[in-house]
Amino acid sequence: MLNAKVKAETLKEVVELLHTLVDEVKMNFGKEGLGVKAVDPSHVAMIELSLTKSSFEEYKSSGMELAIELEKLKEVLKLARPGEIVKLSFDEDKNKLIVEIASFRRFIPLLDIGSISDAKVPSLTHSAKAVIDLEALRQGIRGTESVSSHLTIEIKPDVFKLEGESEQDKVEMMLYKEKGEVEIEAKEPAKSMYALDYFSNVVKAISSAQKVTLNIGKDYPLKMEFAFAGGNGTAKFLLAPRMPDSI
Amino acid sequence: MLNAKVKAETLKEVVELLHTLVDEVKMNFGKEGLGVKAVDPSHVAMIELSLTKSSFEEYKSSGMELAIELEKLKEVLKLARPGEIVKLSFDEDKNKLIVEIASFRRFIPLLDIGSISDAKVPSLTHSAKAVIDLEALRQGIRGTESVSSHLTIEIKPDVFKLEGESEQDKVEMMLYKEKGEVEIEAKEPAKSMYALDYFSNVVKAISSAQKVTLNIGKDYPLKMEFAFAGGNGTAKFLLAPRMPDSI
Amino acid sequence: MLNAKVKAETLKEVVELLHTLVDEVKMNFGKEGLGVKAVDPSHVAMIELSLTKSSFEEYKSSGMELAIELEKLKEVLKLARPGEIVKLSFDEDKNKLIVEIASFRRFIPLLDIGSISDAKVPSLTHSAKAVIDLEALRQGIRGTESVSSHLTIEIKPDVFKLEGESEQDKVEMMLYKEKGEVEIEAKEPAKSMYALDYFSNVVKAISSAQKVTLNIGKDYPLKMEFAFAGGNGTAKFLLAPRMPDSI
Repeated sequence: MLNAKVKAETLKEVVELLHTLVDEVKMNFGKEGLGVKAVDPSHVAMIELSLTKSSFEEYKSSGMELAIELEKLKEVLKLARPGEIVKLSFDEDKNKLIVEIASFRRFIPLLDIGSISDAKVPSLTHSAKAVIDLEALRQGIRGTESVSSHLTIEIKPDVFKLEGESEQDKVEMMLYKEKGEVEIEAKEPAKSMYALDYFSNVVKAISSAQKVTLNIGKDYPLKMEFAFAGGNGTAKFLLAPRMPDSI
Repeated sequence: MLNAKVKAETLKEVVELLHTLVDEVKMNFGKEGLGVKAVDPSHVAMIELSLTKSSFEEYKSSGMELAIELEKLKEVLKLARPGEIVKLSFDEDKNKLIVEIASFRRFIPLLDIGSISDAKVPSLTHSAKAVIDLEALRQGIRGTESVSSHLTIEIKPDVFKLEGESEQDKVEMMLYKEKGEVEIEAKEPAKSMYALDYFSNVVKAISSAQKVTLNIGKDYPLKMEFAFAGGNGTAKFLLAPRMPDSI
Repeated sequence: MLNAKVKAETLKEVVELLHTLVDEVKMNFGKEGLGVKAVDPSHVAMIELSLTKSSFEEYKSSGMELAIELEKLKEVLKLARPGEIVKLSFDEDKNKLIVEIASFRRFIPLLDIGSISDAKVPSLTHSAKAVIDLEALRQGIRGTESVSSHLTIEIKPDVFKLEGESEQDKVEMMLYKEKGEVEIEAKEPAKSMYALDYFSNVVKAISSAQKVTLNIGKDYPLKMEFAFAGGNGTAKFLLAPRMPDSI
């Protein structure tokens, strides 16, 4: 049994975020809310989202995992007008997810749950952490994208730096703690390089967060965390580092 | 002799509607107003428009039929700014339609009148009729387009239903008479399937109507009627049914 | 030594204008301001821009000519938000132009100054001159573009006319002195034909001028002049005539 009502915007953000990494996902409609994990095909990037019961207008689930093609969910969500509510339910007989928005009802066929592998979230310890405005991160990525396909994040106790470099060009973005442009927690300076593709797409797909937290280490995976859906949803994005010598 | 002044928006809507079916049309500038009929090349869809004298700012015609390439008219209408008036006249010596908008004058060569065949409007009797908001019809078409290349319209005494279905997916839109979402006149339930291409394009090209009337029967041609140009223009769109077994 | 601060909008307009003709330019940061000349590869069109010291928020230069790839400057200017200031400086050791906008710093490698040939501005005497609204010129070009790849400009003492003509079609735009649509200085009528490509692109790239001055003669090069950057910048665009027999 599934009976969930949620703001279309919230579900759209979930779908957009997941779709940056995968085409199909297992959505875990647990008793206390929705949880989803997805890993990209080459296992470089991972995303973990959870929406508590309170992010829904109404939520009841006997607990079930549904495997869904994201494109289909995206299509039906396009029909929602600002502020509209989406109702999700499960037709066990026909094995379909029923999505209702205003006058519409769409029946989405479910995929075989076994066809999608489980994502295992690694345990990580980061040495440096910075909290920055989403908008600043977006700008920083736009700037580095024009020069390179990867970027370097550096966190020092007083400054956060994004850098993109190619043989001929270089672009840097610097945010200073002193100027209130960034919050930093770093025992020692950390610096690591990451490919831009997934990172850039995930950052573009975030629509409701104001701030994001970036955790890095020395040549270490990135963990980006942010809240969404008015604080009732939380997201984690993990990205493997790219070795500098592989430029 | 032709001397007609009309709001650019009105003429734009006429051209956009006709252009969904044909590239060239015969425009009949009669003594009492403009009338145009067009059939698509495969004779599946037909459109019939008429603009009374009162839809024009000024209208005088000795009665004439001019064969026009719609693209050329479209191009010159793009030059009009909101609220501007278009003046149409006929240069008999050079066989051109003269279109004047603000500081512009364009001379459009006319086509051979015999090169465009006449459209014969069939006589039809529909068993069910529904009046719905244009916006709801647009949404319904957007919804079904994502699933299928054809849609089924069903009118029952209390409900209007659009349905798109493919092997795996299904989307429905339901509008209820009781909720005031639709007006219905139906002696008996009617249901018919139509290809989406022309239908969708015509519905997108309507710009000034608030409501449209859909007339159907059991596996029968669709007749969609709507007013435009502030009620001084009327349009009829006819569309052959698509047989369910031909899916 | 170079230390210049300028509104991003101003520098954007300079770059957009130059980019209609060339990919690389020599920018002359003189002691009293910036001057740039560019000729298109086929020597049909030329542009000459100058920004006085007072168009800058701050300006100090020991006098230098820097050869720059416009695309790189364009990219970094995209990062500027409305109203933001760009700081330009020259890193002599690394031979790079340093562009700073808000938190960003981009290092643009300079090109070999000898690789870009000098543009020689011809001396011209025009017999007719018209001052028209940029918006009217834009509309006129849009109108003629749909009919032809070249346009004819005609200036008579009382009327300014743009005309586009193909074998079958013709479009004219007429602006009358008497109606206050144009200012004209013409001893005798002048008429000349020009290719539309560069002309159209340059006119689209103008963003801050309200009026432009067009100088022509009888089958003679066009000189278009306009002010930009709030009147502190001046631009000249020269375009060779196209012979009518070469249609």
